Amino acid sequence: MGECGSVSLFYNRFTNDEGFVMAVNLYPPGAEDTRPVAGVRLGFARAGIRRPNRKDLLVITLDGEVTVSGVFTRNRFFAAPVAICREHIDLAGKAGMPIKALLVNTGNANAGTGEKGYADAMAVCLALAGFLGCRKEQILPFSTGVILEPLPVDTIVAGLPVALENLKEDNWAAAAEAIMTTDTIPKAASRQFFIDGQPVTLTGISKGAGMIRPNMATMLAYVATDARVPQALLDGLLKEAADLSFNCITVDGDTSTNDSFILVASGAVDIGIESADSPSYALLRDQLVCLSRELAQKVVRDGEGASKFMTILVENGPTVEYCRAVAYSVAHSPLVKTAFYASDPNLGRILAAVGYADVEELDVGRVNLYLDDIWVVRDGGRNPDYREEDGLRVMQQSEILVRIDLGSGSAVATVWTCDFSHDYVSINAEYRS
Amino acid sequence: MGECGSVSLFYNRFTNDEGFVMAVNLYPPGAEDTRPVAGVRLGFARAGIRRPNRKDLLVITLDGEVTVSGVFTRNRFFAAPVAICREHIDLAGKAGMPIKALLVNTGNANAGTGEKGYADAMAVCLALAGFLGCRKEQILPFSTGVILEPLPVDTIVAGLPVALENLKEDNWAAAAEAIMTTDTIPKAASRQFFIDGQPVTLTGISKGAGMIRPNMATMLAYVATDARVPQALLDGLLKEAADLSFNCITVDGDTSTNDSFILVASGAVDIGIESADSPSYALLRDQLVCLSRELAQKVVRDGEGASKFMTILVENGPTVEYCRAVAYSVAHSPLVKTAFYASDPNLGRILAAVGYADVEELDVGRVNLYLDDIWVVRDGGRNPDYREEDGLRVMQQSEILVRIDLGSGSAVATVWTCDFSHDYVSINAEYRS
Repeated sequence: MGECGSVSLFYNRFTNDEGFVMAVNLYPPGAEDTRPVAGVRLGFARAGIRRPNRKDLLVITLDGEVTVSGVFTRNRFFAAPVAICREHIDLAGKAGMPIKALLVNTGNANAGTGEKGYADAMAVCLALAGFLGCRKEQILPFSTGVILEPLPVDTIVAGLPVALENLKEDNWAAAAEAIMTTDTIPKAASRQFFIDGQPVTLTGISKGAGMIRPNMATMLAYVATDARVPQALLDGLLKEAADLSFNCITVDGDTSTNDSFILVASGAVDIGIESADSPSYALLRDQLVCLSRELAQKVVRDGEGASKFMTILVENGPTVEYCRAVAYSVAHSPLVKTAFYASDPNLGRILAAVGYADVEELDVGRVNLYLDDIWVVRDGGRNPDYREEDGLRVMQQSEILVRIDLGSGSAVATVWTCDFSHDYVSINAEYRS
Repeated sequence: MGECGSVSLFYNRFTNDEGFVMAVNLYPPGAEDTRPVAGVRLGFARAGIRRPNRKDLLVITLDGEVTVSGVFTRNRFFAAPVAICREHIDLAGKAGMPIKALLVNTGNANAGTGEKGYADAMAVCLALAGFLGCRKEQILPFSTGVILEPLPVDTIVAGLPVALENLKEDNWAAAAEAIMTTDTIPKAASRQFFIDGQPVTLTGISKGAGMIRPNMATMLAYVATDARVPQALLDGLLKEAADLSFNCITVDGDTSTNDSFILVASGAVDIGIESADSPSYALLRDQLVCLSRELAQKVVRDGEGASKFMTILVENGPTVEYCRAVAYSVAHSPLVKTAFYASDPNLGRILAAVGYADVEELDVGRVNLYLDDIWVVRDGGRNPDYREEDGLRVMQQSEILVRIDLGSGSAVATVWTCDFSHDYVSINAEYRS
């Protein structure tokens, strides 16, 4: 895969309603991040699910010869809507009942709610299907918010008419806002490119901001293209994109019960994708991976309490899985994350996290560690030429590359993460209050 | 194993030098926690290793027909002193060169220091051996503190004469203080009991307080008995005690480079332990497990920023390892730990952590969750009889039992942990400043 191109960096931070300073080099989306996708309309409502006067309900309708693919959390306490999404996507492929709409609520995760939660999620599907004149099996439901509380079905259903009234193709910015929970900034990204002479659009939105250690997908992300893509190929595309984007990030190591990453192909533009060998498949794949990474990285940049964005690059390991295990060990260490928060080059903590990574064998004498361009650890010990002031200089940046060379193979893995601040604790100690 | 008896609970907290309120129901040790052990003398110095006027150097000398056993960190970046301890303990058993002294410094971990670190640790062993008139192979060195910085050998050696001057058997309280780093309260425990009509003493000290997720042992713990125990049996005793105590705790999930848990048997009292089948072996084992648990739990009670002490009990699982994986998944979740800090019964976070535990299969429909005596989750979903005010009442306690019934076997595991507070972030963001 080629380069993803530069993502704009802005050295500004935002403050959310509660006064937390958050989001590393992340701006609200502009028009170039929210291009309409033919056949995909979006509408929102302020249904008052958990709090009043807040966009908390989103409906996305799909017209035309649409295909939809999804990857979902591997948490065994997956939420009821996740179970239903799996069933309905499966049915859509088999029974020729294409997905007609996606329905997303915030404020309540409908997880840990047992059989009643399943019935509740199906009830909102049925209500939306009634409005749209389709079957409930053609609706995909999504919920995000507090776990272990019953879904307020009536409140959601009451909000549907408003959401349906303002349905339009040019509504991605509002949609990005409508799926936010503890996020401080809406997240959207878009690309337009030519395949075989035809303009293709790819637009997506995502949300975090805590319980982020996706295992198949982040909490919620929706990407749509106007290209026509057969179901089996769409599934492959999405799986590849998830593995190279949302499956490479972590905020706090907690895998959510509701992670969902959905890819919609509305079919408006036929770029001749017939097999995974089609040249246009490779082109679309590249664009999708880049867009998905951008959305995934935005989740990290807006991670709860984040003040720094770190790229953990582990290279020259025996396998990708091995490198990834080492990278996650570093990215999950509270001691590493608090040191980054403090801009303290207490870099022994990184070595310690490498040392306890869940991998079979590790020759510590071959390990080298670099902080951006600064060579900190050489052959397993402190580099004699390393000077603390150099480490300090890098630690004070808002974006930092931690490069760990294992010297024992040729595989590489990257994980993106953020630091661990007082605000993380505040946000999560006060989440429900 | 029988009951450990009640450990005194005191509903008081202490404030350390930096003003952090810490330590859950933990008081400084009294005379009943620091009984002398015949043949074991302790001396300390204020060597000024990292900060002035602080007990930071400890020498423990061993007289008589002593046996010594140790378990050490599994972190692959284990510190130089850990490597030397392993070698010297091995030599003591094989070459008939009994261990004569233990030497502990705080302020510097001598980890990630490569070959120079090894030579430095050996240099302090050699210096102490010179004072004591023994070989350097008869010294066990220990270091704890900042990783990746060179050991200040001269400062340590300069402190040795002072430590040797104040050597005495009744010095456990000062020794507990001399091994503290970010601990707010010294940790010691002692038991005296009769085996075969003879009084036996067991006294130990431990220290935390961050980078605590021992894998074989906690950061530093030393336990001594005056009983005579052959080497092979001592090794077995220590392994069993470590597995049931220090290997069941976590503060932040970070396994240190320097974890060491040492058991000394000075041989002054012959209670006739000839094999693991001796009745006196079983009696000593029981007492040792209880004492080790007390020391391990003290580390958790004084975990960095801790305001609550939680017992995570996972029962009715297929195997002990399975139960332990589930317990650690809950104990490591930052979202669970911040909810406990806030006394917020956001108990869905516990379910989510159970759901992403690294275990093969999990039938979520059989999972039941109790918070002390409150039945929160019934058969995988919210218990219809659960009332939030009951959960809130338990969450406000300083000690909480989280009981997870997996309903799929008969194995049990317990993990002790603490909550995650603003102070944890402050302490670790400012550790080196």
